[in-house]
Amino acid sequence: MIVILKKNPDKNQMDSLTNWFRSLGVEPHVSVGSHQTIIGLVGDTSRVDMDVIRAMDIVEDVRRIQEPFKNANRKFHPEDTVIDVGGVKIGGGHFAVMAGPCSVESEEQICAVAQAVKASGAQVLRGGAFKPRTSPYAFQGLHGDGIKLLLRAKELTGLPIVSEIMDASHIPLFEDVDIIQVGARNMQNFELLKQLGQLRKPVLLKRGLANTLQELLMSAEYIMAGGNDQVMLCERGIRTFETYTRNTLDLSAIPVLHSLSHLPVIIDPSHATGSAKLVQPMALAATAAGADGLIIEVHNDPAHALCDGPQSLTPADFDTLMHKVEAIRPYAER
Amino acid sequence: MIVILKKNPDKNQMDSLTNWFRSLGVEPHVSVGSHQTIIGLVGDTSRVDMDVIRAMDIVEDVRRIQEPFKNANRKFHPEDTVIDVGGVKIGGGHFAVMAGPCSVESEEQICAVAQAVKASGAQVLRGGAFKPRTSPYAFQGLHGDGIKLLLRAKELTGLPIVSEIMDASHIPLFEDVDIIQVGARNMQNFELLKQLGQLRKPVLLKRGLANTLQELLMSAEYIMAGGNDQVMLCERGIRTFETYTRNTLDLSAIPVLHSLSHLPVIIDPSHATGSAKLVQPMALAATAAGADGLIIEVHNDPAHALCDGPQSLTPADFDTLMHKVEAIRPYAER
Amino acid sequence: MIVILKKNPDKNQMDSLTNWFRSLGVEPHVSVGSHQTIIGLVGDTSRVDMDVIRAMDIVEDVRRIQEPFKNANRKFHPEDTVIDVGGVKIGGGHFAVMAGPCSVESEEQICAVAQAVKASGAQVLRGGAFKPRTSPYAFQGLHGDGIKLLLRAKELTGLPIVSEIMDASHIPLFEDVDIIQVGARNMQNFELLKQLGQLRKPVLLKRGLANTLQELLMSAEYIMAGGNDQVMLCERGIRTFETYTRNTLDLSAIPVLHSLSHLPVIIDPSHATGSAKLVQPMALAATAAGADGLIIEVHNDPAHALCDGPQSLTPADFDTLMHKVEAIRPYAER
Amino acid sequence: MIVILKKNPDKNQMDSLTNWFRSLGVEPHVSVGSHQTIIGLVGDTSRVDMDVIRAMDIVEDVRRIQEPFKNANRKFHPEDTVIDVGGVKIGGGHFAVMAGPCSVESEEQICAVAQAVKASGAQVLRGGAFKPRTSPYAFQGLHGDGIKLLLRAKELTGLPIVSEIMDASHIPLFEDVDIIQVGARNMQNFELLKQLGQLRKPVLLKRGLANTLQELLMSAEYIMAGGNDQVMLCERGIRTFETYTRNTLDLSAIPVLHSLSHLPVIIDPSHATGSAKLVQPMALAATAAGADGLIIEVHNDPAHALCDGPQSLTPADFDTLMHKVEAIRPYAER
Repeated sequence: MIVILKKNPDKNQMDSLTNWFRSLGVEPHVSVGSHQTIIGLVGDTSRVDMDVIRAMDIVEDVRRIQEPFKNANRKFHPEDTVIDVGGVKIGGGHFAVMAGPCSVESEEQICAVAQAVKASGAQVLRGGAFKPRTSPYAFQGLHGDGIKLLLRAKELTGLPIVSEIMDASHIPLFEDVDIIQVGARNMQNFELLKQLGQLRKPVLLKRGLANTLQELLMSAEYIMAGGNDQVMLCERGIRTFETYTRNTLDLSAIPVLHSLSHLPVIIDPSHATGSAKLVQPMALAATAAGADGLIIEVHNDPAHALCDGPQSLTPADFDTLMHKVEAIRPYAER
Repeated sequence: MIVILKKNPDKNQMDSLTNWFRSLGVEPHVSVGSHQTIIGLVGDTSRVDMDVIRAMDIVEDVRRIQEPFKNANRKFHPEDTVIDVGGVKIGGGHFAVMAGPCSVESEEQICAVAQAVKASGAQVLRGGAFKPRTSPYAFQGLHGDGIKLLLRAKELTGLPIVSEIMDASHIPLFEDVDIIQVGARNMQNFELLKQLGQLRKPVLLKRGLANTLQELLMSAEYIMAGGNDQVMLCERGIRTFETYTRNTLDLSAIPVLHSLSHLPVIIDPSHATGSAKLVQPMALAATAAGADGLIIEVHNDPAHALCDGPQSLTPADFDTLMHKVEAIRPYAER
Repeated sequence: MIVILKKNPDKNQMDSLTNWFRSLGVEPHVSVGSHQTIIGLVGDTSRVDMDVIRAMDIVEDVRRIQEPFKNANRKFHPEDTVIDVGGVKIGGGHFAVMAGPCSVESEEQICAVAQAVKASGAQVLRGGAFKPRTSPYAFQGLHGDGIKLLLRAKELTGLPIVSEIMDASHIPLFEDVDIIQVGARNMQNFELLKQLGQLRKPVLLKRGLANTLQELLMSAEYIMAGGNDQVMLCERGIRTFETYTRNTLDLSAIPVLHSLSHLPVIIDPSHATGSAKLVQPMALAATAAGADGLIIEVHNDPAHALCDGPQSLTPADFDTLMHKVEAIRPYAER
Repeated sequence: MIVILKKNPDKNQMDSLTNWFRSLGVEPHVSVGSHQTIIGLVGDTSRVDMDVIRAMDIVEDVRRIQEPFKNANRKFHPEDTVIDVGGVKIGGGHFAVMAGPCSVESEEQICAVAQAVKASGAQVLRGGAFKPRTSPYAFQGLHGDGIKLLLRAKELTGLPIVSEIMDASHIPLFEDVDIIQVGARNMQNFELLKQLGQLRKPVLLKRGLANTLQELLMSAEYIMAGGNDQVMLCERGIRTFETYTRNTLDLSAIPVLHSLSHLPVIIDPSHATGSAKLVQPMALAATAAGADGLIIEVHNDPAHALCDGPQSLTPADFDTLMHKVEAIRPYAER
């Protein structure tokens, strides 16, 4: 951390500042220049609050040069984290595809899709029971009944399941869900993150629409600070000025997150693009860039899906995609 | 709503589509061109799901031309909503300033600030008891104890209070809080919004960092659909590429929201800019642009504030600001 | 400037680096920590190329803590610049409104608008002769003939004129134009900026749609480095995810630019919002926030304007606006 | 195009509007509803100016449903354009890699890099002679001398060359340059685009930092409207709120541009990311997503490059990358 002082700082205030830094366990190195005085802080600054320093009279600016996250930080945990979901491994060279419908609609639908995606090589079944919708008048999911249908499809196919949670009070309903997904809109629902930190169950944490990669890692840190270190990071598109695609899929997140953190990185091309015909090229691109997994919407009847039909692949298109993904995997960048 | 069909649409599919529209109570008007066929839907389309239509085989694109919100829509409710908070009126020509510290820190602090801002003309006391912080290691507020201290300051000064809620399970703690604030990160925490819709208490709903004005109004619609029509909209800066200010305060939100909706519009220049020296010009600008109120951070000792010190005004600066605000108000645009 | 070295930097490389800094006239201060070594550079670093340093083997990162602009920098030029345009002063407490049509269309039109805006108190006449249009098929302006018509209106009313240049080769046509405007799309047309730096004539430099305030100041620096110090900075909206307004007007640019630079700051609410009904509140907000001037589109027949009609005020609306602007001016923040 | 009228539009004004549409060669279809009247325009609307319509009294809004570009539009030109550069084909299934240093620095440097990239399979040599730099004090390129050195390297290796132009007045210097590059900052330098439209030489048109894909296609339309149909579109990262990477590479631009246009799409991972270690995964991702080519910075001594060293690959890294690109190509999405 670098503290830049205003011109001609008061000597006493500067002494008290450097003593305060030492009391926090970080060593200040002072460089006095004719125009500017700079204090370099060396040590573990993850618990130092930049805002408190910035408010001080003699301080002009503060800059962090170390990442403010610790449990999620590759510097303190050089080995890749490998998540084990009922035998399916994700991360550290293990690649997994999660597939299924946006929403669980009926037993027939979820079971048919589950069998289809399994046949094509998917290793995890996705399906929404609680659906965050912009409009209060849109279909919001089958809730507890949706979870039951997912468990029925799991029983039938043996695929572990991933489903989105929208409120901490629903945690008991997710007892048998293998991976709990935190949606983009809840990435900074800190109360929910804290509660998930108390579980010992994998969490798929989606990046918020306008959140930086550092903020994503800080949200992972909330979960990990509670003792749950099974976190997967998911890029699903960020909001930009471009309106042709629903969001802009930021694939550079893959190598950046891999360099900053040891956690697996999953890409969701379906929500990012909002269009089935863009899912395939973006899924291949994500694979080539070194993603640890993909999460893809597949529906047996996209034209009649209760939500997000336009972005769902048919089982046949998904099957074609899976063959290409497998062909590209060996050349992927890591 | 406009539905644009693909070239040479199948006649039977088109008939079944138009019949389906009629069954939803909207009348389709078909314009057949040599290159393109367009269906114009006339009527109440707020419950028609665009995604379902877009997924149909014969459909190329769908565009909404009416707003998808109803309770918050000025077209259906031409009169300005006036919120009454213990006698303080906001909206419809009534202007109110909410002021106080970012966090409640101690009885001494909150009472001193409350008395100061009251003396300068503030009509509502703000103070955070639950603080959403990016880092799990930063100060998170005094929680229930913070609410108690706010109520102590309310008792002392008579000022109604506004404080932020972070989870629906905390609602009982807010029983005596006059205005419940929903922070930017929770603007699309739909479970929380639904619960607040069950209350009969004013809600100050902050725009999310990357949310459009239409999404803000849809979130207001979530609260209003539950029967709680006392919603105030708050612009607090959006995330852009500019890094000099913490966020970019979007003041055009004031006239735009006033034209789309009857709800009061409050501006928060403190969080938007993150810098005390920018709060004053932005507060005056918001007043001139026709805001119904301001929410401003004031701290009796910004340099030692436990959070967001750099953006807090001193009571003396706040007093100066209030005089200018009052001078500009008569010339504000409405 | 701060240079952060990789762990355990090679001693010889570090010595050669610090010697190189000294040769550039900046003094390095080295802070050696157990995890990180930091070099603080003190002195004039505006000519040090960060990219060159960043590419060095032993360097992890480089951060600038001083602004990279000099002529435009308030630190080196504390007094406000006052631009004198044929007797009209702008900056340093002098406020001026520039008004007129988006495009010059005919002698009748430009003269009628010029007389109307003069009567309402405008001090400079604006009018486009060269129009940057997204489509090659849209009206592109009257070019040289447009300039002649502007000069005719200047002769008639005595108002100095401002008009946009699109290419350095057109400079001779602008010999009698009082202020040359550089449009947002040309803010980083460095060849054009360099040529304008050779003139001794005021330049109104518009911020690009996606340019930071620092980049705007660097473009001003291009002009000033050539010896032309009569630069006015103009904020005209930035591109964000919000689609309701054409752009998002960033009014915090006013106090920020005033703190970083001594140059006058002009606001263009017409192009920023794209809607006449938003021009008025945003013009008042800009005035309250301390702008040194406004540039506003006025057309005597907006419904038949050849470009940008929807954002043009009628002369009557402009007159109303000018009265409010004058009322607010005394309370504006500086 | 859809024109939405205000409630209860005047009958005469509506008749005159529909007659006007017919005079422009587009057929209006009117749908009258109880709340809204909609006019659907069918025919070639590329020369209809939306702004003129929007300004009319009875009009509430106008929406375009057809793309406003024609020469670049796949609908009117279904076959892929294939660009032939001295025998090297790009587009329509032909893939080419352009590689070389950011700036031409010396004969020794450009020749060494040219030989290295040719040996690894690059088919075009890139090198900057005119360098747009944010700061007027940074190295701006060797200008005409740089072009001469590029031609020397072309002579040596037989590789055609691509180099950036910054001003229309420099066109004569580019007579022997095989591909003229228009940089991101000049994407809407319409005077330059018009002049390039007069040439019969391939143009590599880079997307501006904050420009939509439609605007990129409109800029291509400027060049093509002049008769030069040899345009390649280049995505090089857009500006977003994320600060970890220099820009955000928008790879969904590849399938989107391919569906909207017949022009080849080239990806520049070097400028997009600003970091050599991100170039490789992003180059592979672009290949997998179906790009028609890549443009990559390679320098024989990145640590001493005069610009953009940190994003340049070494020849050895470039060679490794080329092998992976070739392996992935057969599985790329088209």
